Amino acid sequence: MATLNDVAAKLRENDHFVILTHQYPDGDTVGSAYALCRALQKLGKHARVIINGKLDRKFEFLQHDLKEETFTYKTVVAVDIATPQLLGELRPEFENIIDICIDHHASNTNYAKLTYVNANAAANTENIFELIKILGAEMDRDMANAIFTGISTDTGCFKFSNVTSHTMRTAAELMEIGCDSFEINRVMFDTKSMARIKMERAVLESLTLYENGRIAVVNTSLAMERETGVGNSDMDGVASIPRQIEGVVVGITIKEKGTKNYRVSIRSLGKYDACTIAANFGGGGHHAAAGCTIIGELDDVKARIVEAAKAEVARADSE
Amino acid sequence: MATLNDVAAKLRENDHFVILTHQYPDGDTVGSAYALCRALQKLGKHARVIINGKLDRKFEFLQHDLKEETFTYKTVVAVDIATPQLLGELRPEFENIIDICIDHHASNTNYAKLTYVNANAAANTENIFELIKILGAEMDRDMANAIFTGISTDTGCFKFSNVTSHTMRTAAELMEIGCDSFEINRVMFDTKSMARIKMERAVLESLTLYENGRIAVVNTSLAMERETGVGNSDMDGVASIPRQIEGVVVGITIKEKGTKNYRVSIRSLGKYDACTIAANFGGGGHHAAAGCTIIGELDDVKARIVEAAKAEVARADSE
Repeated sequence: MATLNDVAAKLRENDHFVILTHQYPDGDTVGSAYALCRALQKLGKHARVIINGKLDRKFEFLQHDLKEETFTYKTVVAVDIATPQLLGELRPEFENIIDICIDHHASNTNYAKLTYVNANAAANTENIFELIKILGAEMDRDMANAIFTGISTDTGCFKFSNVTSHTMRTAAELMEIGCDSFEINRVMFDTKSMARIKMERAVLESLTLYENGRIAVVNTSLAMERETGVGNSDMDGVASIPRQIEGVVVGITIKEKGTKNYRVSIRSLGKYDACTIAANFGGGGHHAAAGCTIIGELDDVKARIVEAAKAEVARADSE
Repeated sequence: MATLNDVAAKLRENDHFVILTHQYPDGDTVGSAYALCRALQKLGKHARVIINGKLDRKFEFLQHDLKEETFTYKTVVAVDIATPQLLGELRPEFENIIDICIDHHASNTNYAKLTYVNANAAANTENIFELIKILGAEMDRDMANAIFTGISTDTGCFKFSNVTSHTMRTAAELMEIGCDSFEINRVMFDTKSMARIKMERAVLESLTLYENGRIAVVNTSLAMERETGVGNSDMDGVASIPRQIEGVVVGITIKEKGTKNYRVSIRSLGKYDACTIAANFGGGGHHAAAGCTIIGELDDVKARIVEAAKAEVARADSE
């Protein structure tokens, strides 16, 4: 694995950079790309970003005053992209020609010619911040905003377990540079679309509790998505809703994807293992967050996943 | 005004401390009190806390392993208490004998014999942290948890505009001491009671939008409070709900307090001034958050406050 110094050396040696984000671009991949692009431009290099899919309106401010460049690219950089699959529609053009990858996923498949992975970083923009320091590009407010957006969105506004003291110190430095931390957090975490509000209401109407309120199950349907008008980004975090209810240790969200086709998201607390539950249906994930696909009628899908959740609760309680 | 060094000297000179919180105790006053109490005990002093009212269940962990002491107090310390009014039921006994006040409210009325106010601190526990460093008491995990709880709750998990780089660096230090930052944030910000969920649903059912969705009004009734079973802490942040809707610049929450008696909370964004709206009805507050009481029938109260909000939106737009 390369070091950040190796990455900095490679960036210095080369020019005409195109920086790729992963598909369904989130704040961290977009923030990483724009911060690095601005740094390279400041160093006199030619650089541009390819946003892989539709840029959510709430991230548009990251393009503020960005110099748009057209040139034939010579060096390809991937940011926050763990696997070539996540290149989506860009995969045919770029998969085999990625020169540099800068990432924070331990699961990175090492597909680039030069790969830097620091899985201790809560957000990949933490890595980008260190890289820009090594490169010596002068940090400005737009760059600080891009880096802060990655940190804030990948940590749920400093709430998730991935936050370290390094994350907090990085945020402090960005605030001292003058980033719009309050406004970024407000837009990312304190604003809900009417469609999202309607969807939350519909989700909660579907709530069923089991095992004295320790298992909570909700479901969403394609009809609910149509009626509320939710977009993809409106659905962010919906899978966390049942687990947030006081007393719940396993929260399950059953999302209709098509006829008799359901995507099941499982969130758990403490000793209860979401991954064990998902594994019953060929799924996987992490200890506290996992998922699987189940084929069948909704009532049957619900009965089967509840059965598996009850078994995991019983197993963990008997330990 | 005293310095933190003055406060430290006074604490060193004295003993038999009773530390008071404000009424309706929140995470910052409780965190300040327990952190300081533990530090004084570590220095070989006698110290205990008086929680002013009912301690919310979610703050009970702050009493973990605390040495309970009974003694006749000789020195009275107030933490996070801006005015004697906030002493509530403790006012008769303590109002005129408070030796030391440590606070972060600019509005502090200087009622104690020695007062330290640092209004740049997002939470008063930031001040307590600095004080404990000066005192030289060894910081442990329980103290770090108390300080972190104050910071996290007074900043909405690092989301509010009061957060500074000093706040972030303090949090980083606390995490390095080993505080349970993730668990604290989860309990404070990622858990909702069923009563709260039902109340949010009822609140959103009352939603009315005006001025092309720029003004949002909701209301709560005593009947809703009874039916959902919400307690005081379940109502925290309910007043923020209408303003969180995308596109809303003035969010208004009308809360029934008694017969024809309504407490109105106003939240605003950017140039729109909540305080101007509240002032029409003899109320006040800050630019982005203000309140007033209006007497009358609900429909009439709603019409009057909406009229005032429309006037403020028109005024700000014409600037």
